Amino acid sequence: MSIDSRLDATFAALADPTRRAILARLSTGVATVNEIAEPFAMTQPAISKHLKVLERAGLISRDRDAQRRPSRLEPKRLAEASEWLDQYREFWEASFARLDAVLEELKRPKQVSRRRKKDTK
Amino acid sequence: MSIDSRLDATFAALADPTRRAILARLSTGVATVNEIAEPFAMTQPAISKHLKVLERAGLISRDRDAQRRPSRLEPKRLAEASEWLDQYREFWEASFARLDAVLEELKRPKQVSRRRKKDTK
Repeated sequence: MSIDSRLDATFAALADPTRRAILARLSTGVATVNEIAEPFAMTQPAISKHLKVLERAGLISRDRDAQRRPSRLEPKRLAEASEWLDQYREFWEASFARLDAVLEELKRPKQVSRRRKKDTK
Repeated sequence: MSIDSRLDATFAALADPTRRAILARLSTGVATVNEIAEPFAMTQPAISKHLKVLERAGLISRDRDAQRRPSRLEPKRLAEASEWLDQYREFWEASFARLDAVLEELKRPKQVSRRRKKDTK
């Protein structure tokens, strides 16, 4: 599978609040379908469908042998998605820095602003 | 829009190689639809559709006044997605560390392995 296909599958799998909540649940440890389904107002087949999407995207693995097929978080594809996003880090850091500068300027007492204006003459 | 709806829209918008390539193009500067469409084997209406998805997700903004409506990268939602992924960082770092340890063990000369075994007796 190419990096592009993997990112397609990862981001598509993450575009759902239930699937994101399932990953959060699995970050506390392996769990069976029943254990995963418990906090959700969802049937077990509905949860199973979400698990299939997550498994196909490589975000979880499931034990083939054990009877209740516990699911386990697989973090590799999350790392890949994070790495892809990281190339835009300089953009958001620059934009947050600009916002901070504006807020700082708004907080500054008027008098100080006037003094700064004189200084720059 | 709730954080969950924003993450849904962001991840869904990112689950497409053309849209990811458009964001990469816009990271080099603002661009019109024609400029964005140029490197793709796609019609301008097809590119416009992708721009609409990116705009609705808040990943780009488009100039309403200028005639050619240049698009601009908006990094805030990418930062939010990155922050969400970051909560799993300890998992992938631990799993990469385990892999490194296994590779290190495989690289170790046999003699040293034997000596280590004796040491632990």
